[in-house]
Amino acid sequence: MAVTLHVCITCKAGQTVSEGQPTPGKLLHEAIAGIGAPEGVAIVPVECLSACNNGCSVALSAPGRWSYVYGRMSQENAKEIVAGAAAYAAAPDGLVPWRSRPEIFRKQSLARIPPMSLPEAAE
Amino acid sequence: MAVTLHVCITCKAGQTVSEGQPTPGKLLHEAIAGIGAPEGVAIVPVECLSACNNGCSVALSAPGRWSYVYGRMSQENAKEIVAGAAAYAAAPDGLVPWRSRPEIFRKQSLARIPPMSLPEAAE
Repeated sequence: MAVTLHVCITCKAGQTVSEGQPTPGKLLHEAIAGIGAPEGVAIVPVECLSACNNGCSVALSAPGRWSYVYGRMSQENAKEIVAGAAAYAAAPDGLVPWRSRPEIFRKQSLARIPPMSLPEAAE
Repeated sequence: MAVTLHVCITCKAGQTVSEGQPTPGKLLHEAIAGIGAPEGVAIVPVECLSACNNGCSVALSAPGRWSYVYGRMSQENAKEIVAGAAAYAAAPDGLVPWRSRPEIFRKQSLARIPPMSLPEAAE
């Protein structure tokens, strides 16, 4: 279970959420959890990924790999998010070929962070 | 040297950069390197943090800590970035009190990613 898919469950995605109503982030998490985690992936809810201006957001990370954050996600994207997480988990180094990434991952990247062990700039 | 400050050196920050001219990202890296790394921090250039719509960008990370990505940075912010990196390195868990963070870190967060060991949602 090396790969973690973090899903921000507090995100309001710029909407007004009435008291007692689920946030768009919570709905996104429920949709993703409903599909279920791909092999090698843990789906972990988190309170705020500090990407509030681009919510909802999810993050993929694993030891020794680049981490990725994606924004402007909604529950309609749950299937693509799970597929993207599966591809990340299946790629030996987490580097999924560009064309094999879901379109929402290609177009809605907020940031990526190099693995901590990376000693130099990427070639 | 547990904390890494990654600086995207390929970022054009939406500008047209003439051939042979340094990118805004490279200028930002040079300004940060010119100030020098705070204790416990390694300044590491990186090619693209995939935050191109919000460049220039920098990222702070360390094993077992939340990672942070900040955007819309320029060489004029180098001093604040280094101060923010020093505060992150000095905080035992990397969680710098809100008021102790540089204003550009408070206002220009692109995302944060939980440490990989985090088993549950943050309280």
